[in-house]
Amino acid sequence: MFNEEEYSRVDVKGVYVTSSGVGMAPVVLLEDTGGRILQIFIGVAEALSIHSALNNEIAPRPMTHDLFVSVLDRLKVDVEKIVVDDLNEGIFYARMFLKIDGEEVEVDARPSDSIAIALRTRSDIFVRTDILDTVGVTRDELKNFFSFEDEMLE
Amino acid sequence: MFNEEEYSRVDVKGVYVTSSGVGMAPVVLLEDTGGRILQIFIGVAEALSIHSALNNEIAPRPMTHDLFVSVLDRLKVDVEKIVVDDLNEGIFYARMFLKIDGEEVEVDARPSDSIAIALRTRSDIFVRTDILDTVGVTRDELKNFFSFEDEMLE
Repeated sequence: MFNEEEYSRVDVKGVYVTSSGVGMAPVVLLEDTGGRILQIFIGVAEALSIHSALNNEIAPRPMTHDLFVSVLDRLKVDVEKIVVDDLNEGIFYARMFLKIDGEEVEVDARPSDSIAIALRTRSDIFVRTDILDTVGVTRDELKNFFSFEDEMLE
Repeated sequence: MFNEEEYSRVDVKGVYVTSSGVGMAPVVLLEDTGGRILQIFIGVAEALSIHSALNNEIAPRPMTHDLFVSVLDRLKVDVEKIVVDDLNEGIFYARMFLKIDGEEVEVDARPSDSIAIALRTRSDIFVRTDILDTVGVTRDELKNFFSFEDEMLE
């Protein structure tokens, strides 16, 4: 189930390293068309994978998400969209919407995997608008969150 | 294409950390029924994923290979087997054999991803026998490869 009126389309602005409650951690930033930004803490491997996809880097051997997309392609499965649609106790939840032979299949996933795959399949990424209303920040507000030690993962 | 006569079935003996040419690195050990062991250096994320599968650990949120298997399941795709079938300049190559609607699909993959997925789908793992003939070691020989600092990833 997906009611587009309840969702905002977002772009992936990049992956950065920032301070979290447990030390430095990678974060992916999603931005809607109104300039609101969502920060999602993710794992290191997933951050590197998103970073590679954003920079069109092709690994000599298929990395896990590359293999994922290669398998979906060989099985003639379309990634229609991915949606970040819940936030509970600081954990974001996402779903992937796949289509095979005209049949839609929804799969529970982490935002990081979903984003890493959506970037490789050029699929739309949506966030439920009330999540952006609640925890989205502006670019100016974002500066208060990021410390001077923050660096892009490069 | 897969000619079973050219292959040996192996079990995954575990993931360990050992010294490589570039420092400490995770390694997965595969053992055939004759006690010959193949060592394959793998990435940290893939090692943790294989380790979790070997110990039947279930993460609170689906990790990347868990998502992979969940998608294959939802798409009614069987993982028939995975095979490690080439070794070139120190890099091992693998293939996953998938079956969907009776049709077999082969996908080029890294051994680490293939093993992480095969453990979760309880699929057979094969290694081309001439690779075991060339670089397989016995348990006794393995002791010479492992240093005292080697530890299981736990």
